[in-house]
Amino acid sequence: MISRNLFIGLILSTILCQVTMAQSNTNRIRHMVVFKLKHSESSPEEQNFLNAIRKLAAIPGVEKFELMRQISQKNKYSFGLSMEFADQQAYDKYNTHPDHIAFVQNRWVKEVDDFLEIDLKLLE
Amino acid sequence: MISRNLFIGLILSTILCQVTMAQSNTNRIRHMVVFKLKHSESSPEEQNFLNAIRKLAAIPGVEKFELMRQISQKNKYSFGLSMEFADQQAYDKYNTHPDHIAFVQNRWVKEVDDFLEIDLKLLE
Repeated sequence: MISRNLFIGLILSTILCQVTMAQSNTNRIRHMVVFKLKHSESSPEEQNFLNAIRKLAAIPGVEKFELMRQISQKNKYSFGLSMEFADQQAYDKYNTHPDHIAFVQNRWVKEVDDFLEIDLKLLE
Repeated sequence: MISRNLFIGLILSTILCQVTMAQSNTNRIRHMVVFKLKHSESSPEEQNFLNAIRKLAAIPGVEKFELMRQISQKNKYSFGLSMEFADQQAYDKYNTHPDHIAFVQNRWVKEVDDFLEIDLKLLE
């Protein structure tokens, strides 16, 4: 009896998770930036910048924050940043949040050599 | 008793899911392409191309296939494609799969106006 109820719990959990994802997709925005730094590879300055960028994850509204290495030889960028917002309003709040504005002014414009912003919405 | 076991099931399911994700991240590659088409917006030709690109999801090794609209005004691309591979070997198999090669030759090179490929790995 215990194992059957555990099984039902697992199934219920899976269904609930999928329903939540499907319902939330319509307005969701995935914001991505691919970039390369002025700093040399594996330098302390590079590490310091990456640590600073990770703090953006704490800004309200930021979901699924991912900091990644860009490994394709077919573009010039070294890193990729990805985050999701529930909707345009949450994205706007992030953009105008003092911590985001301070990061852009104090770090991004000074230390980033080149970048490309990409915003994505799932096709219905 | 039933509800307690259901609760345990839900918790177990959540933990198992997170462990699987965390363990699989080291070698995983997210392959992305942002692109714009030669076809005009909302044309039957555009829809036909998007339907063809969706079939790439059936190629072995392709995981988390997503076809998205690119909505940022800060780049020239209209769509984004994202898929994940368990490792470089799975990615290589996709690249050399006959269905992928046929799609690139018969559709991609003829109908895509411009594109950028991005390959990402989570930073450890």
